[in-house]
Amino acid sequence: MEYRISNKLAALKPSAIREIFKSLSDPSIIAFAAGNPAAESFPVEVLAEITADIFANEPVKALQYGQTEGYPPLREAVNKRLAEKFSIGCSVEKGDKYNDTTLIVSGGNQGIELSCKVLCNEGDIVLCEDPSFIGALNAFRSNGAITKGIPLRDDGIDTEILESTLAADRAGENKIKMLYLIPTFHNPAGITTSLEVRKKIYEIAVKYSLVILEDNPYGELRFAGEEIPTIKSMDTEGLVLYCSSFSKVLSAGMRVGYITGPEKLMQKLVVAKQVEDVHTNQLFQMLCHRFVTERDLDGHIEMIRAIYRRKCGLMMKGLDENLPKSFKFTRPEGGLFVWCTLPDGIDMTEFVARCLKNKLAIVPGTAFCPDENGTSNSVRFNYSTPSDEQIERGCVILGEVAREMLDSQL
Amino acid sequence: MEYRISNKLAALKPSAIREIFKSLSDPSIIAFAAGNPAAESFPVEVLAEITADIFANEPVKALQYGQTEGYPPLREAVNKRLAEKFSIGCSVEKGDKYNDTTLIVSGGNQGIELSCKVLCNEGDIVLCEDPSFIGALNAFRSNGAITKGIPLRDDGIDTEILESTLAADRAGENKIKMLYLIPTFHNPAGITTSLEVRKKIYEIAVKYSLVILEDNPYGELRFAGEEIPTIKSMDTEGLVLYCSSFSKVLSAGMRVGYITGPEKLMQKLVVAKQVEDVHTNQLFQMLCHRFVTERDLDGHIEMIRAIYRRKCGLMMKGLDENLPKSFKFTRPEGGLFVWCTLPDGIDMTEFVARCLKNKLAIVPGTAFCPDENGTSNSVRFNYSTPSDEQIERGCVILGEVAREMLDSQL
Repeated sequence: MEYRISNKLAALKPSAIREIFKSLSDPSIIAFAAGNPAAESFPVEVLAEITADIFANEPVKALQYGQTEGYPPLREAVNKRLAEKFSIGCSVEKGDKYNDTTLIVSGGNQGIELSCKVLCNEGDIVLCEDPSFIGALNAFRSNGAITKGIPLRDDGIDTEILESTLAADRAGENKIKMLYLIPTFHNPAGITTSLEVRKKIYEIAVKYSLVILEDNPYGELRFAGEEIPTIKSMDTEGLVLYCSSFSKVLSAGMRVGYITGPEKLMQKLVVAKQVEDVHTNQLFQMLCHRFVTERDLDGHIEMIRAIYRRKCGLMMKGLDENLPKSFKFTRPEGGLFVWCTLPDGIDMTEFVARCLKNKLAIVPGTAFCPDENGTSNSVRFNYSTPSDEQIERGCVILGEVAREMLDSQL
Repeated sequence: MEYRISNKLAALKPSAIREIFKSLSDPSIIAFAAGNPAAESFPVEVLAEITADIFANEPVKALQYGQTEGYPPLREAVNKRLAEKFSIGCSVEKGDKYNDTTLIVSGGNQGIELSCKVLCNEGDIVLCEDPSFIGALNAFRSNGAITKGIPLRDDGIDTEILESTLAADRAGENKIKMLYLIPTFHNPAGITTSLEVRKKIYEIAVKYSLVILEDNPYGELRFAGEEIPTIKSMDTEGLVLYCSSFSKVLSAGMRVGYITGPEKLMQKLVVAKQVEDVHTNQLFQMLCHRFVTERDLDGHIEMIRAIYRRKCGLMMKGLDENLPKSFKFTRPEGGLFVWCTLPDGIDMTEFVARCLKNKLAIVPGTAFCPDENGTSNSVRFNYSTPSDEQIERGCVILGEVAREMLDSQL
């Protein structure tokens, strides 16, 4: 049998990153390549306690079909938190031009995938930061959309290139449907978009009637520096979708996220979600609701921030002590990732391969290119998954491989 | 802001069924319109017990990211059960022509949606039984595929029409990519495809290199009659995808299903799932695994069958006693639904509206038309959701509305 695969899936090749992830099942390999939250960040006892209570008192609600939009008390709790923490949530009743509504999704990635499905025909374009999150890029491609990168600077994307790209598109094919951004603690680039650039991006989006998808999975994981307002909080016109999840603050395995945006768009996302998985699993929606409303989520997040502050500090110390000065890396104020740019003349693919040979898995920057033939001389490190000892040892390996390759250049 | 919605989602209108479902939140309405498993079928105590054990002994596994393919022990348990109960699972090692593999999905509907995404470009055609399951039809449409119905007879689809449709397509545009079937306890039509028709369908599929998606969510809910082999069990050539779930045998709210098929196709489904929700929630995968391997799932299903045998019997009795003889309805041997065809001259939409006015919600047959402009003079009843008293009362209402409408014809 010769299978005829859809063009969109036929083009979606298992990436290099997949091969590296396979290597992670080898316990002798140090994983700087993953993006898992630290296991010690899961509030196991509290979750076990609430779950037992749900099974004792509301089992049928947890085990029966629920609403596609999500468990109503959780939607309400998310809205309340988004309003308080991020000034998000417009309503006509309060005098705004439009209503925001929230859809509970099965992890943040589903919110990203649904947004593209609702907005893009096959062949339409999604603009992204270059580099961008591989899971989002492939979600867009799996819907037949074309991903196009806007260069990412230290303070966010190049807004001049954004504007000229949009101007050309609007005067021509008019195929750009969405701008996908991770403004805070960017994955993989580690940077945070400045307030000034956020304002400029929003202004351009309004000018060109462009929907922005603001992805903020790491937004609550700040362990240094000052908070910067979300783009969604500036959204007077109703063109921003805001996506986040409980994966990094409660548990990744439970697959509970949320996406908030203008009601008219969200109604279409609800229809698209209904035919994917009907609704997100009920028990974990109830668990999130109970945790947010009855327990100290802020205190719990403070504890997680302390873990990552320490782990990131360890990695910074290890990189400072081991990496030659010609290797440039970001100094994160939050999130999970460090982005390291190799000096000229060091082959990135070779660097990644030599690290793996030395039992350290890191991710090649090419995995994050919006253009599938894009090049990169950067690599991504993660500090949330490895143990303290692994962080220290991994940095030593990085230094050894770096010097070995620099020496062979001479 | 004027949103530009993708063609596929713009065309996907909230259906009449959605309005009817909204009415179900009114507790005074009797719900013959739902498809929920009976609440008393959930093994609450055992699930609570296993969950407590998982939180005590393997919490990190339950709360951390898992593999897209699914929790390996559950995949293995599903494969074992499929082999034993349904003779499903080819392997080259055993001498078959190809390997089947299993992907755990977030409810059966995700398996349906992913199959279409992997096989269909926008504008490609999925053949379906006419009528067919609304959740599947909309999943196909949400990917831009066109649904085309093959008339359903008492023993399955009309295989002559199937063959002539395929012959015309293959000689022309060659756009038919998949045949979607619910051969056992069909939703909504209530019928089961005969062994003879199953064999004929498979033969035609081989002749025209057509992928079959066999959806079997109700397969284990037989309470009368003889088992009929699945189409997948006949699949020597590797063209059948087989989809089912734990929703009707353990819990619908936990969103755990599975899809099994030829490895080459399944690899693409894994990639497509990865960018939708990364993986299915871990805890419930572990729960399903423990239930299947350590507890008496067969005994539990026997208990569920007894519930539905009784409830279906109650509905048959109520319909026999109340409905005029000119109303024809199926007598299910399993599953959750009864399909009732109204006599000539009775307007189906009016019948549904009058029932709702009398506090009984039923589903109009038009909701299940593969052709969006299709017509129907049938309606669907469900007996798993309403209580015994509601089944009896609902049948009385049906009889009253039926006689009222017949009388007004005179």
